[in-house]
Amino acid sequence: MLVHSIEEVREEVYSWKKEGLSIGLVPTMGALHEGHLSLIKKAKATCDKVIVSDFVNPIQFGPSEDFDKYPRTLEADVKLCSNEGVDIVFAPSANEMYGEGNRLSNDTLTYVCPPFFYVNKLCGKTRTGHFDGVCTVVLKLFNIVQPNYAFFGQKDAQQVIIIKKMVKDLNVPIKIIQCPIVREESGLALSSRNKYLSESGKKDALVLSRILNNIKSCYKKGIKDVSALKETAYDFLNDKHDLEYLEIVDRESLEDKITADDNSIALIACRVENVRLIDNIYLSEV
Amino acid sequence: MLVHSIEEVREEVYSWKKEGLSIGLVPTMGALHEGHLSLIKKAKATCDKVIVSDFVNPIQFGPSEDFDKYPRTLEADVKLCSNEGVDIVFAPSANEMYGEGNRLSNDTLTYVCPPFFYVNKLCGKTRTGHFDGVCTVVLKLFNIVQPNYAFFGQKDAQQVIIIKKMVKDLNVPIKIIQCPIVREESGLALSSRNKYLSESGKKDALVLSRILNNIKSCYKKGIKDVSALKETAYDFLNDKHDLEYLEIVDRESLEDKITADDNSIALIACRVENVRLIDNIYLSEV
Repeated sequence: MLVHSIEEVREEVYSWKKEGLSIGLVPTMGALHEGHLSLIKKAKATCDKVIVSDFVNPIQFGPSEDFDKYPRTLEADVKLCSNEGVDIVFAPSANEMYGEGNRLSNDTLTYVCPPFFYVNKLCGKTRTGHFDGVCTVVLKLFNIVQPNYAFFGQKDAQQVIIIKKMVKDLNVPIKIIQCPIVREESGLALSSRNKYLSESGKKDALVLSRILNNIKSCYKKGIKDVSALKETAYDFLNDKHDLEYLEIVDRESLEDKITADDNSIALIACRVENVRLIDNIYLSEV
Repeated sequence: MLVHSIEEVREEVYSWKKEGLSIGLVPTMGALHEGHLSLIKKAKATCDKVIVSDFVNPIQFGPSEDFDKYPRTLEADVKLCSNEGVDIVFAPSANEMYGEGNRLSNDTLTYVCPPFFYVNKLCGKTRTGHFDGVCTVVLKLFNIVQPNYAFFGQKDAQQVIIIKKMVKDLNVPIKIIQCPIVREESGLALSSRNKYLSESGKKDALVLSRILNNIKSCYKKGIKDVSALKETAYDFLNDKHDLEYLEIVDRESLEDKITADDNSIALIACRVENVRLIDNIYLSEV
């Protein structure tokens, strides 16, 4: 069922809660792919009722980012969700979420601001204000849906870590479930932004997962020095790749590492055909 | 019942919710006086169960403010609450609220940041970060207790307006109930900080309510010009008074007024014996 209004979601949720049913939320920006579907399947397996939110959140995009051209495929999304047995697809307008005529800035809106230590690195370094926008919309969705569980993909690793930190810091009564990255057979991590890539761009984009897999196998072979591990990337990069960052940090605290260990995660952001792609890998299975 | 742990509050609340009982929260920093008791009585009249939180929140005090010497009277508070039939007094430690060994800064903790427009004026002008600290702890308490209603005093007018804005902006599923200022017979607004005043200081402190009452009666007599209304204050002030601000603004949006109207509120902050006191009055009854 496609729902656009906050009030309608609340009424539905209220009746479910009265029956004692558990509720799962899968927050998305739409343009659903197999990665999202894996979250939805997990939610279906965990909860009595599942709500997928489908909202391209303006306040998490910077002024020079791709908000306007971000893919919007609501009709197809609803069909996919319906096939998976999703109970509600919640697709509000920006006015419904932020109020009519509101200037979307911290001059006029209350924001949730994750800690600088988690934000001033990796994607947050170039995407100023991005994680404030993410935390704010996620907390709003949490308050609207009041789910027992919320499902996030490991693909946006820094995002999941920051959301878990928000949940802990603000005592949000919701359990965050993190689901593994889904990849094409080629190794390319699924992303709504892959749609921007040409066929040859998709091939160039394989460099992200190759660099990460190689770092992992070097780590397994005994190379623990982070600088040495990072240097292995240069064998893969050419002028089709605009590397933004490659970092190896603690997978929970995001603290920098000098020496990698089994709690380390390697993360990469790289532009291909001017499309910003990210990927990550745990150096050791949990 | 006095409870120190978040877990214990949650268990109790969970069992109440299962029974379908409504829950009211009265957030306080302790040092309870008749002002707080009026909130508690209102909560008792509105809800099946009432929780009073009693927590001097470190992150809403500036480095040069009175966090250390702020009055702490937990035993007396519990007795007062018990007389009023409060179900739980929730008095957590700072460690329970913010985690052991956490640095209390936005470098390591997630904050809720109300909009600059509401913050960069009145009390927020001199108390940098104060309302970030207030919103953060209030949202935490909301998430811990998950009340249907929360009760705040009109005495901290800017605070109530900012909390209502937070609730709206973040879709918090809680109704905010605002209760009128309670005054001594002399007119002095009740405040935990009145304890810092000497007897003669308490007399000097009457200037706040006198200035406000006079502005209101001038307004009723037809003076609408905000500058003219504010100038009437100087008849009352002497060298015992260190005026911080006197403003007349919209009672909901906090927008500045040139001409006062029935939606205006007059607010004052003034130091007496170096104790910072605040008060406010609606120029017209609602």
